[in-house]
Amino acid sequence: MGKITQKMEKLSPGRIGLLLHIGEHHKLVNLGIGEPNFNTPKHVIEAAIRSLQSGNTHYSPDAGTLELREAIVEKTERDNGFTVDPESEVIVTAGTSPGVFGAILATIGKGDEVIIPSPSYFAYESIVQIAGGKPVFVTATEKNQFVPELEKIAEAITPKTKMIIVCSPTNPTGAVWDRNIVTGVADLATDHDFLILSDELYEQLVYDGLRVHSPAAISGMFERTITINGLSKSHAMTGFRLGWLIAPNEIIAGFSKIHQHSSICAPTTSQAAALAALTGPDEPVKTMLVEYDRRRKLLANGINGKIPLLSTTSPKGTFFMFVNARELLVKHHDDMMKFLKTKGRAFLESLPKHMFNIGHLNRSGSLVAMLYLISATKVLTVSGDWFGPGGEGFLRVSFAQTYENIEKAIDKMAEGIEYLQ
Amino acid sequence: MGKITQKMEKLSPGRIGLLLHIGEHHKLVNLGIGEPNFNTPKHVIEAAIRSLQSGNTHYSPDAGTLELREAIVEKTERDNGFTVDPESEVIVTAGTSPGVFGAILATIGKGDEVIIPSPSYFAYESIVQIAGGKPVFVTATEKNQFVPELEKIAEAITPKTKMIIVCSPTNPTGAVWDRNIVTGVADLATDHDFLILSDELYEQLVYDGLRVHSPAAISGMFERTITINGLSKSHAMTGFRLGWLIAPNEIIAGFSKIHQHSSICAPTTSQAAALAALTGPDEPVKTMLVEYDRRRKLLANGINGKIPLLSTTSPKGTFFMFVNARELLVKHHDDMMKFLKTKGRAFLESLPKHMFNIGHLNRSGSLVAMLYLISATKVLTVSGDWFGPGGEGFLRVSFAQTYENIEKAIDKMAEGIEYLQ
Repeated sequence: MGKITQKMEKLSPGRIGLLLHIGEHHKLVNLGIGEPNFNTPKHVIEAAIRSLQSGNTHYSPDAGTLELREAIVEKTERDNGFTVDPESEVIVTAGTSPGVFGAILATIGKGDEVIIPSPSYFAYESIVQIAGGKPVFVTATEKNQFVPELEKIAEAITPKTKMIIVCSPTNPTGAVWDRNIVTGVADLATDHDFLILSDELYEQLVYDGLRVHSPAAISGMFERTITINGLSKSHAMTGFRLGWLIAPNEIIAGFSKIHQHSSICAPTTSQAAALAALTGPDEPVKTMLVEYDRRRKLLANGINGKIPLLSTTSPKGTFFMFVNARELLVKHHDDMMKFLKTKGRAFLESLPKHMFNIGHLNRSGSLVAMLYLISATKVLTVSGDWFGPGGEGFLRVSFAQTYENIEKAIDKMAEGIEYLQ
Repeated sequence: MGKITQKMEKLSPGRIGLLLHIGEHHKLVNLGIGEPNFNTPKHVIEAAIRSLQSGNTHYSPDAGTLELREAIVEKTERDNGFTVDPESEVIVTAGTSPGVFGAILATIGKGDEVIIPSPSYFAYESIVQIAGGKPVFVTATEKNQFVPELEKIAEAITPKTKMIIVCSPTNPTGAVWDRNIVTGVADLATDHDFLILSDELYEQLVYDGLRVHSPAAISGMFERTITINGLSKSHAMTGFRLGWLIAPNEIIAGFSKIHQHSSICAPTTSQAAALAALTGPDEPVKTMLVEYDRRRKLLANGINGKIPLLSTTSPKGTFFMFVNARELLVKHHDDMMKFLKTKGRAFLESLPKHMFNIGHLNRSGSLVAMLYLISATKVLTVSGDWFGPGGEGFLRVSFAQTYENIEKAIDKMAEGIEYLQ
């Protein structure tokens, strides 16, 4: 008997798991994981402590406390421009991951196609596969700042299309979709009768005066849109595991069957913290954004000016930069591979077998570059190929790190690449 | 287009959701939800607060902090008698629900059969259905104190059997399996090559000097056993959402693919709290257990001595009593139904439609009794039929409530039933 299902065996091995593992076991400059280095705002921590002290440590309603749901509804009206019923159209989740996971499981059945703009967060593909659906990628290019073209999306639609995933700002590319493309996608969804899953986790992290457009705010679209959001990135609250899902009642009814069996409810201390984050002062978020912008410029200038063979266009949102490493790979793929098989060998062999095996190196140059940079320069970035078609040849580099560490990482990467020349 | 999948439409509507909803919107004595009324032990709260104050609010490794995994391993050796590798055989989860959910999704494919002793926690059936598997119930009877007979389990095995679920002590019946039945099930699993999922969440809550037997501790069984445990019930920590899963590496590898996409990691504050719970003083748990035992006797004596037409055998574990209401139903089913359709009507109509509709009343006498007791006596219990075959005709009554509230509930239920006579 195979202990796990064939479907599960076929899924890509742990990626976040591998990143977190390397971060835990190796001393390095971590530009890998999407983890704000900031402290959670003080008023949020204080609210969490007050909640614990008051004995608020029991289950909440499965949809979350009514107070928090009302605060989410108010935030959504204010920032995203659409109204939501707190009783029947919002569910608080333990991070945004259970929201994305449960939403896809509730709506995607065997054979249903899900259009996934690529490069994008690798969980989408895996979750669609777990649900029995078929991921259909639409590749965006660096030339278009990683925003997919509407025509290409239209071409990907078939009678089996059940959903498109919209994630703007986009992890890993930092792409921000303008109003035209969002409206265009909404029209396609209406014409061809499919759903939109809009992952808006990076909504607050946009630069250059841009803003984010929520599909659910477009007239008639609420009924076919699942909106996912949370506070992990905007408020440096990743460890709280707090997010939410907004959808029409019919989808909530399906989702809640999964949610009650896979979560019961989000952690109550985190719910109290989230209420404070949504109703308290805005300054901490604004201060972080100014600092992220400063780091964004540092990193872009460093990569384009100081590191040979790497280049980047500056992202418009998130705290990720999708760095072009094609020239590096053309010139030094074999050198890096050789390094990994000699000096880097002990590091590669230290990685858990269910997360990595050496055969993976033959599949992706980006992965070779990622592992080379870890073992030769102690800088953690992420292989672009993990993010689907269009990602090979790139590295995702996070600037959710201190200014000083980003400076250090630039110098180390420059050194590590000069060493190959 | 149907927005949710057919599979999801067929699933039973929200049950925990309905309980939590009623608990939130109605002032009543809540003997419904499995929620300890105790405060979380002080040293646990203090550890959570210290963790928040120290800025420990970021992601942990996806398997949980190494410190906590080591404490879990130590607890397991001490209490459960088997050894576990903290690096590759344990994953910390946000409550036990994501553990049960992900474990079944990772191992059960289309057509696989899962033996579920019944009555038991309703999530198992739904999760097996979500995974595409087939639940096969083995009914236990009150006469055997709700422990299933080994012969009946053996009869339920087919070549498609992939797993049996063991939950001892059992929610909702309080049954505790003795060594013979656990060993017998282990032999069957070996002979017929299937897995055991052992949900040990109520392990600490056993009375009359009994103890719990972990299947994974039996020689050769670790390789085919998934052990689920947590602190929600023993340490009154439901709101923390903290549990763990122990399994052989092959299953961990499959499970972690689901876990990283559906959770990323358990909340970090809760992980710090759990570490304190596992390594700190044991007295709070023992004190709670003594008090639960006192309440257990109060409730059993009250039901058997003071309330007409209800009876119970005293449970050996958990804080649930599975109360026989068959006599009540034989004599007064129609009276209760009539009450619900007149005086109780407004209450029924206040329930969210995706959780309840009036047609459900025709399917289960237990549900009629549950709703009658809510609307006529303001006491919340749970319909036995929700827990699968063998549950119809019973009510699950929790004694995780104050002594005074249990006294009050006994008086109110007695009054409500006398009213029908």
